[in-house]
Amino acid sequence: MSFDTLLYAHSGGVTAVINATAAAVIEAARAHPGRIGRVLAAHRGIAGILREDLIDTGTLDAEALARLARTPGGAFGSCRFDLPREEGGAVMDRLFAVFEAHRIGWLLYNGGNGSMDAVARLQVEARRRGHPLQCIGVPKTVDNDIEGTDCCPGFGSAAKYLATSMLEAGLDIASMVGARGSVFVMEVMGRNTGWLAAATALAAGGDPERPPHIVLVPEVAFDEDAFLARVQAVTERLGYCAITVSEGIRRPDGGLIMEKSRDPRGYVQLGGAGSAIARIIHERLGYKHHWAIPDYMQRAGGHWLSAVDREQAIAVGRAAVELALQGRGGTMAAIRRLQDAPYRWDLRPIETAPIANLERALPAGFVAPDGLHVTAAACDYIRPLIEGEFVQPTLGGLPDYRPFALPRVARCLPEWVG
Amino acid sequence: MSFDTLLYAHSGGVTAVINATAAAVIEAARAHPGRIGRVLAAHRGIAGILREDLIDTGTLDAEALARLARTPGGAFGSCRFDLPREEGGAVMDRLFAVFEAHRIGWLLYNGGNGSMDAVARLQVEARRRGHPLQCIGVPKTVDNDIEGTDCCPGFGSAAKYLATSMLEAGLDIASMVGARGSVFVMEVMGRNTGWLAAATALAAGGDPERPPHIVLVPEVAFDEDAFLARVQAVTERLGYCAITVSEGIRRPDGGLIMEKSRDPRGYVQLGGAGSAIARIIHERLGYKHHWAIPDYMQRAGGHWLSAVDREQAIAVGRAAVELALQGRGGTMAAIRRLQDAPYRWDLRPIETAPIANLERALPAGFVAPDGLHVTAAACDYIRPLIEGEFVQPTLGGLPDYRPFALPRVARCLPEWVG
Repeated sequence: MSFDTLLYAHSGGVTAVINATAAAVIEAARAHPGRIGRVLAAHRGIAGILREDLIDTGTLDAEALARLARTPGGAFGSCRFDLPREEGGAVMDRLFAVFEAHRIGWLLYNGGNGSMDAVARLQVEARRRGHPLQCIGVPKTVDNDIEGTDCCPGFGSAAKYLATSMLEAGLDIASMVGARGSVFVMEVMGRNTGWLAAATALAAGGDPERPPHIVLVPEVAFDEDAFLARVQAVTERLGYCAITVSEGIRRPDGGLIMEKSRDPRGYVQLGGAGSAIARIIHERLGYKHHWAIPDYMQRAGGHWLSAVDREQAIAVGRAAVELALQGRGGTMAAIRRLQDAPYRWDLRPIETAPIANLERALPAGFVAPDGLHVTAAACDYIRPLIEGEFVQPTLGGLPDYRPFALPRVARCLPEWVG
Repeated sequence: MSFDTLLYAHSGGVTAVINATAAAVIEAARAHPGRIGRVLAAHRGIAGILREDLIDTGTLDAEALARLARTPGGAFGSCRFDLPREEGGAVMDRLFAVFEAHRIGWLLYNGGNGSMDAVARLQVEARRRGHPLQCIGVPKTVDNDIEGTDCCPGFGSAAKYLATSMLEAGLDIASMVGARGSVFVMEVMGRNTGWLAAATALAAGGDPERPPHIVLVPEVAFDEDAFLARVQAVTERLGYCAITVSEGIRRPDGGLIMEKSRDPRGYVQLGGAGSAIARIIHERLGYKHHWAIPDYMQRAGGHWLSAVDREQAIAVGRAAVELALQGRGGTMAAIRRLQDAPYRWDLRPIETAPIANLERALPAGFVAPDGLHVTAAACDYIRPLIEGEFVQPTLGGLPDYRPFALPRVARCLPEWVG
């Protein structure tokens, strides 16, 4: 019995280009009909594998694949699920029972830091069991915090969306300057790292008088007095001040500026750092305050994709299929930067075990010495990643994101009751 | 001494296409060199007229005008300023002193309901004083609530932005459905009217199973129990529920769901209805909750303009110049809908006095009988206004919104100390 089925799965938060990776994996796999039989996709990531809820991608024709490749969100669904830490166990048994039942010889797992941990551990487990599975990591995260890759597909488009949003909202607030002074705060994603916040600095084009005037990142403890002094100085000079805030900024004692709740997994649901900062400014300085929270919009902005990001999302998908066929289980297709301007990059495989669960923070040289902005070096790094526009076909003035028919593969195993 | 200067001014909140109107006014005025001498723009609206802070638009060449016409926000600045209610008075004296000093024969005033009141009263005042001023209204507001015009420039682009945002965020949250159920709330502008909230319904494409599943508008009192019952029904069926909330929704007793503060003019700064609704859901139903607040981004989205909206913004600017030259002071260039599909429209002048300070709410037929959504008729009305895309030239992956040099006209009058 040959293990000629390739299984693709999403993990964690989705992005505007994650489906571009999915489509590239499917297309690349189809280019090897002699070796790869069926191409399946897990419905809702690893949780779908456990439930044996598998999608047959064979019904997606060329038109549907092209459409998939330009649709934001994860068409196959995703989930947040961490493999149990111990070796073996019921979850591993079930996963390998599904791999066995569907003759899965390759698993391509598209995710972030936690997912690369899963890739490494699944590969170890396969070897331990003598199973032929080759598990390959495919990088993806708007947080841009995977170690070992110069950047992460999904980040460039979110960065472009947020830099554009700061640029445009900045023009709006600059128009509305009144005698009293106004502040605009944009809260962006980033629990522990400030990559997305840093991206908004591109809106200023190197001019300290243009928005954003302040960028707060989780890598730097929030110094309220220094921050307010800067807000006041900017507002007295320009009449307004535009500020980017990472959702995960913390006070010097380590406490989050705003912590909402924990979900059952203990995963903190953040949100509110932007309004908290706006309120602090209003109370201490009396300025008019507005805040924006792009939330999911920042990672789903398919109408305004970075062409470079989309190209990289496609490339890592294709490369992962090649790595799978080469038997490079346990590796991830990583992006390597060869040159900033003009931007040049290539791909190389790296081992996932050493990078699993690490989180790449902004390097010290990317944060301004006063902790209230990012540096030109940070902008130089991010700039090429937002380059180029991908023009979305539209239907009635909206992007054409019609839903897909996703037929399921017949189940062979008893229901999962884990 | 001939009054051959045309003065253009913005008022109130700006839009993504207000500068398209400004550029159209300047271009149309330049086409009448025999009658119109200089074209000035007030810096920051009527407050700028009072301060005699006037911009000479003569230095904007064709390239700069083309760029102005695609830059969001108000390049000349805007302000919130209501004329005192009494006839005559120091403010009127000052305004007419400025009109006199700069030989202003035409004032084109681009704004919403309050601005049309100013247009009507300035025209009455001019006649009372025997001043030749012709004051013409130019409609603009993302709120779409001016009476007498079928729609308002600025609305279509904001509507397109918000419908696209709901569509994209909806794909994201649908990808992330878990066992617990998730809700996504998007808070949109609309203190008293639900036009922008209604626009997000276009994302569903007529399918009640697609986001937004609920649309809350200020025209309907918020019924918490009925709302929660619907949220629960949708979430149990689909695993998630996407909701649009107007910032100004109110409880049956008239109280705002969330009221933040009043500025010195007594103007309520809203915000927080979205997070309040998300919290209510979380507390009463226990679902995971996310919320987005596009804030200024929704009215500044120049990277994703409605081509129809932009065309109308240009047309009202041109028409206003013609009305000015025809001596139709006290009128506004209004948009008339001739047909829904294919969309056909034209312009006609209407008197501003009867529509001044009115606020056009959603008609009853646009709100679903249960008050939790909008109707197909509302979608049919809005659909043509978001049609067509305007492709922004970019620089380094961001829209090319370079700043403008805006030279000031020399002051002739004593400083304003009003």
